Amino acid sequence: MLIVQKFGGTSVGTLERIEAVADRVIETKKSGADVVVVVSAMSGVTNQLVEYGEHFSKDPNGIAMDLLLSSGEQVTTAILAIALNAKGYPAVGLTGAMAGIYTDEVHTKARIENINTARIKSELSSGKIVVVAGFQGITKGGDITTLGRGGSDLSAVALAGALNADLCEIFTDVDGVYTTDPRIEKKAKKLATISYDEMLELASAGAKVLQNRSVELAKKLNVKLVTRSSFNHNEGTLITLEDNNMEKVLVSGIALDKNQARVTLRGVIDKPGIAAEIFTALAKKNINVDMIIQNVGQDGTTNLGFTVPQNELELAKDTMSSLSAAKHVEYDDAIVKVSIIGVGMKSHSGVASLAFETLAREGINIQMISTSEIKLSVVVDQKYGELAVRVLHDAYELDK
Amino acid sequence: MLIVQKFGGTSVGTLERIEAVADRVIETKKSGADVVVVVSAMSGVTNQLVEYGEHFSKDPNGIAMDLLLSSGEQVTTAILAIALNAKGYPAVGLTGAMAGIYTDEVHTKARIENINTARIKSELSSGKIVVVAGFQGITKGGDITTLGRGGSDLSAVALAGALNADLCEIFTDVDGVYTTDPRIEKKAKKLATISYDEMLELASAGAKVLQNRSVELAKKLNVKLVTRSSFNHNEGTLITLEDNNMEKVLVSGIALDKNQARVTLRGVIDKPGIAAEIFTALAKKNINVDMIIQNVGQDGTTNLGFTVPQNELELAKDTMSSLSAAKHVEYDDAIVKVSIIGVGMKSHSGVASLAFETLAREGINIQMISTSEIKLSVVVDQKYGELAVRVLHDAYELDK
Repeated sequence: MLIVQKFGGTSVGTLERIEAVADRVIETKKSGADVVVVVSAMSGVTNQLVEYGEHFSKDPNGIAMDLLLSSGEQVTTAILAIALNAKGYPAVGLTGAMAGIYTDEVHTKARIENINTARIKSELSSGKIVVVAGFQGITKGGDITTLGRGGSDLSAVALAGALNADLCEIFTDVDGVYTTDPRIEKKAKKLATISYDEMLELASAGAKVLQNRSVELAKKLNVKLVTRSSFNHNEGTLITLEDNNMEKVLVSGIALDKNQARVTLRGVIDKPGIAAEIFTALAKKNINVDMIIQNVGQDGTTNLGFTVPQNELELAKDTMSSLSAAKHVEYDDAIVKVSIIGVGMKSHSGVASLAFETLAREGINIQMISTSEIKLSVVVDQKYGELAVRVLHDAYELDK
Repeated sequence: MLIVQKFGGTSVGTLERIEAVADRVIETKKSGADVVVVVSAMSGVTNQLVEYGEHFSKDPNGIAMDLLLSSGEQVTTAILAIALNAKGYPAVGLTGAMAGIYTDEVHTKARIENINTARIKSELSSGKIVVVAGFQGITKGGDITTLGRGGSDLSAVALAGALNADLCEIFTDVDGVYTTDPRIEKKAKKLATISYDEMLELASAGAKVLQNRSVELAKKLNVKLVTRSSFNHNEGTLITLEDNNMEKVLVSGIALDKNQARVTLRGVIDKPGIAAEIFTALAKKNINVDMIIQNVGQDGTTNLGFTVPQNELELAKDTMSSLSAAKHVEYDDAIVKVSIIGVGMKSHSGVASLAFETLAREGINIQMISTSEIKLSVVVDQKYGELAVRVLHDAYELDK
């Protein structure tokens, strides 16, 4: 039995919290399992390091930035290893590099290419608990890389996959995945299980329990993921392959993403290659375009809409201004994206119409609509975000 | 021309100070030299990390402790590399491991065994400024090590030696090496040059400009060391081989060590092996014995005196109490050690008598005396420490 446990920033935010994590890890170890622990930086540390780095440049040197950022997880790793040893449980702390996590060379947003598990396996077989610094790896050339925000989840899932772990537990400050954000709708219920695909849609729709890349990777490597709280012993939510039971559920959850901004291009010349020009330019700047909407046009022109993260809006504006295709552009960051997610949606056409009716009844105007197999997203005015979540949660009877 | 520049904790204590260091490094680079920069942790950081580590155990796991401590220098290294790049000077930041600094496996007090300079040389030849995290290395097995307090100086000297650098500049918050501590004697003068051996004696006598191990290593590798201030452009002090000019100087400086405690064993049985028993027992506890004095005895017994650092006195007491040879032991931590250092001393017998006369004239009683080729140390009552320094500084006309 091998379990990978990942503890996020708030779970290791203080020395007392790290001690609690040590106790939790020891519980698991005592149960007879081998344990690999992946930790994030103590909460606040990464932001502090980013501030340091950006003091000198808006776009600091990537190799040096990764050297800087990786220190945060290194510190937590070391402290947890010290705590475990002090409690009588032999443990070794490893940086991403020492753990054999090899990545590409895209600094600050690297991708894991392969993991040489020799060192971890040898430490495990000598009975040690292995603590690994999340969020980081090393290039073949020997430079430290980081995996981007939330990358510690990715480290945990990748390690679980490479080590063939029986379970990968992601500990955060919430109990698991809820039908919607309990801070918005008190009647929100915790899901016992959810499919990878639903989780993916939830995450991209703004539910921040897990980072999308880690769910994708878990799906690809078939890693059994559990997300649960490090502050209590409640059962969490199991994220796994879709099974027959899930078919019965139409809608699993409602997500609210407040971090999007809308870009609308009017009078775009309706000829092949225009969309490619626009989105290639955005991709070159590493802008994460989310929803894209284009309608059939008229008079040889069309309207094209898309959303980008709010903090990338300025960069998107710069990019648009350099494009000849985008003559009339509107920007709006006072919008939110509300998404309805469920594997049952694909075979039930009534899901979408119920959403539209419910929102109309409340007088909430829908600005954009986008659908996938298991998701329906609408963009609405920012001020209606929470209201939309609540009425939809009710409409789909998610509290039942 | 290759220059290694090392900046200590106060020199890199804030982002503003790091920026000043970047400017200083760029000055050197602009002068046409290749530059390797070695940095310490920002002041206060290492203490903070030690606190973290010792929160869980008085004797935290060494491997994990080194993983923890090494992060401090890593952060400074990264920030300085970011600052240099931001100012248009390509720079790369390397951890001790990335810089190829291999050590033994004595965690928290490792010794450098060899340096693989391939990476540094390749970065230098591509025109980059190379920033290296001081105080740290890596074992052959891939674990991060640290070199003990003050180890960043050692990193700088070792790199200067391995790279055959023309100069190794150690930047601190003082201008260089003085004839004595200017806080005690305002007339103290900065020395333009001093020999390795004198510097060694000065350091062990309590002048903390440079760590002894780094001076020893500089001497061994014949590295030209300069110690100077990062806060101004004053010329520093060159530490190098003894040359003919130095012969003219009788005494170069007076040092005061307030950190010693005296241990006196009375009535020690005067037979072979007793001293060995005592000092082996102390060595086993890693107690750094400094002066050792034994006189010819009488009645088959003798008195044996030695000094140890004040913070090791309790441990020394424990050790003494377990020894049968040490029946009557006195301890005194209200003492200081005053040392007169100079290469000229060895051929001038008058140096010692001038010291004794000077102290006697002031009514300062000498408790212990110890001499080496280039040093005369006396232990006196703590309250006379500063006075002894001043009158000796005057007697040897060090302000001239």
